[in-house]
Amino acid sequence: MMSYLSVNPYKGTRDFYPEDKRIQNYLFQTMRKVVQSYGYEEYDAPLIEDLSLYLAKSGEEIANEQTYTFIDRGGRKLAIRPEMTPSVSRMVARRRQELTYPLRLYSIPNLWRYERQQKGRFREHWQLNVDLFGLDSIQADNEIINIADDIWQTFGAKRSMYQFKINSRKFIDYVLSQYLKLTKDQTLRISKLIDRFNKMPITDFINQVDELISDQQRSFSVPEKLIEIIKTTDLMKLPKALLDIDEIKPIKELLELNSSNITNMAFDGTIMRGFDYYTDIIFEVFDTNPDNNRSMMGGGRYDGLVGLFGVDPLPTVGFGLGDATLLNFMLGHGLLPEITSGIQVYVVHVGQIWQKTRGIIKELRLLGINVAEGNPDRKVSDQISIAVKKKIPYILVIGEEELKSGNFTLKNLASSKEVKNDIRNLARIILDK
Amino acid sequence: MMSYLSVNPYKGTRDFYPEDKRIQNYLFQTMRKVVQSYGYEEYDAPLIEDLSLYLAKSGEEIANEQTYTFIDRGGRKLAIRPEMTPSVSRMVARRRQELTYPLRLYSIPNLWRYERQQKGRFREHWQLNVDLFGLDSIQADNEIINIADDIWQTFGAKRSMYQFKINSRKFIDYVLSQYLKLTKDQTLRISKLIDRFNKMPITDFINQVDELISDQQRSFSVPEKLIEIIKTTDLMKLPKALLDIDEIKPIKELLELNSSNITNMAFDGTIMRGFDYYTDIIFEVFDTNPDNNRSMMGGGRYDGLVGLFGVDPLPTVGFGLGDATLLNFMLGHGLLPEITSGIQVYVVHVGQIWQKTRGIIKELRLLGINVAEGNPDRKVSDQISIAVKKKIPYILVIGEEELKSGNFTLKNLASSKEVKNDIRNLARIILDK
Repeated sequence: MMSYLSVNPYKGTRDFYPEDKRIQNYLFQTMRKVVQSYGYEEYDAPLIEDLSLYLAKSGEEIANEQTYTFIDRGGRKLAIRPEMTPSVSRMVARRRQELTYPLRLYSIPNLWRYERQQKGRFREHWQLNVDLFGLDSIQADNEIINIADDIWQTFGAKRSMYQFKINSRKFIDYVLSQYLKLTKDQTLRISKLIDRFNKMPITDFINQVDELISDQQRSFSVPEKLIEIIKTTDLMKLPKALLDIDEIKPIKELLELNSSNITNMAFDGTIMRGFDYYTDIIFEVFDTNPDNNRSMMGGGRYDGLVGLFGVDPLPTVGFGLGDATLLNFMLGHGLLPEITSGIQVYVVHVGQIWQKTRGIIKELRLLGINVAEGNPDRKVSDQISIAVKKKIPYILVIGEEELKSGNFTLKNLASSKEVKNDIRNLARIILDK
Repeated sequence: MMSYLSVNPYKGTRDFYPEDKRIQNYLFQTMRKVVQSYGYEEYDAPLIEDLSLYLAKSGEEIANEQTYTFIDRGGRKLAIRPEMTPSVSRMVARRRQELTYPLRLYSIPNLWRYERQQKGRFREHWQLNVDLFGLDSIQADNEIINIADDIWQTFGAKRSMYQFKINSRKFIDYVLSQYLKLTKDQTLRISKLIDRFNKMPITDFINQVDELISDQQRSFSVPEKLIEIIKTTDLMKLPKALLDIDEIKPIKELLELNSSNITNMAFDGTIMRGFDYYTDIIFEVFDTNPDNNRSMMGGGRYDGLVGLFGVDPLPTVGFGLGDATLLNFMLGHGLLPEITSGIQVYVVHVGQIWQKTRGIIKELRLLGINVAEGNPDRKVSDQISIAVKKKIPYILVIGEEELKSGNFTLKNLASSKEVKNDIRNLARIILDK
């Protein structure tokens, strides 16, 4: 007995039927419009890269456990990209001298992660990546954060719907190594723990910190002091000794600069971002909807990555925005508009005379109208019901009589209004719509 | 000593810097415009599919030797898609009952093939896929061929620049099994040989056919008769016994139907298409440029593929168009227009007052203008030279004086003409451009 092929896509991935793809295109086009208004230009990189590209700085868990890796027929160790930042850094390094700065780049690549299925997470997803290279000052961080915010605003989001959380790797480093006087190794390990702070009970966090520190440090209440710092959302409530250090200045400046526009931005010491490459400001944007209360967007400054390729280092700030959590956000807040197929007219054939209708239909297309045709083998009523189901605004009936007279009937399916006229006048009606 | 990461992309792949991506976007947008005018809707499928999807019908060489395959952590045999047809067939089968027909679908996926590097061939390439499901008659083949032709015409190609070659699997099957009276196995093997006819010396072809046939068949001059048939480009010169068979009718009809518009279409019995799934009409489009004399586009009817998934079979016609050969075609015939970055204004900062310029620049963006900013740390002349290098049409100079007076200087970099006015009036000038 013959066995049939499975109709299902690979686990953790999505098929995009036209109604799904239209939504994705709408999301991507809106993102494009915003980033292009800031002068960002689109790039792309190969889907597959050398595995070593990710081992360097993506972070252990991502490069080793969550990445699709394989060996090609030439023995090369490869990876399907789990993120875009290493690729764009490689590309910039490759033309370090020829490129002009500030360099503003964006891309909307598909990325792959080997991970458990959960709501809003897929093995294949798409992510807007926006990066600004070659601008050293806080102006760069500010530009990136304003683009990020502009995207949410352009999607129609209110400030109550999303929340910016901002932190700094340099600041947390200072807290751990200078303020709490931890060793280099403790600082590294506890940084990783902070990254998971919101994913575990607070007692677990304390226990795990306890295990990493000495008795003397415990007696100095290191875990409690740390928690107090990272749980504060008001900078002014931080210990006085931290308020005037250089490491806190970028956070302060960004909050002040945007105090009148991005009013939904606050300090959050638990934001760490998983990747090893961040060097200073980091931020995430959360959905405030309790059903989708997750990070939707994240980024920060990574000044060291381009230099890993043996060229002059380059200050860089960027962020990523994934399609799946964004879609959940849009749906959860009722922000997604109805998006139609873009087909403007459905030709309903009366009889088997499709050969004779070529000229008329071609003329409509030349006038810039998107025309789909029904199947002449089907009844007129069946053809019409397909147009209705597909929410196409107009049907155009064509039979022998219409071809002879040059007068065709155009019907608006929403209003049921019919107009009989020649093709040019009917085209005008369609295009006015 | 630390070793640096390589800046090069994986062998056989391409980085797309903004100037490359702009061209690709132009090619894709033009394709989209044409297929949407015929009522086609975009879909997408996961990049990775079960390997079995390709083993069934893609053809042995493609599925086994040329595909990137690997096994995931759950033990599943997977493939990075080498073509899109199996995926779209799977998707249609998955919703066989809910979908409405005729169903018109397109996609522009990236595809992977493990192959030797050669001009216009890459391991990763993009391919427009256009498919029409559920229309049985020659009307479907005709629609697909007309879309294919419309794409070339919309790119500005003249008929002398490209050539349609049309054939039929059913016709060649009839020639081999009925006319030349070959066995089923001989028919299959010689079909595969014909597919490589243009890639080998004619004497090799004869020798290889000779090896597959009996002495009696040789005495009947099978190789010579076959070559005469597949080398003819004029249907009327075929043996009389072949002129009125059912299997030749679709070829004849398509040639007749398009004799006044697609004048660069002819029969070519050597066109076989590698894939095993074609069932009737097949066609390819060749560049006539002797430096790029290769197939750029190919397709045909594959009525059996959807049925492999255990649902009712569905008549289907489609084609694919790859990005790399298309780009060679456009370049070879001088058809590629100049495509700019889309950045309309470059802000040249005078002094460290970027914080104060936020409002002015935001206003330009709200008016729909794409604005990139120079680096305030650089000299004015350096900022201007970047705008010139990037071919941005306008620069806008902003310093303390301009902010105070509300009058800014806008310079058209092509004409060197300067205008001093308030921001709204300058925006009008930019948008008129």
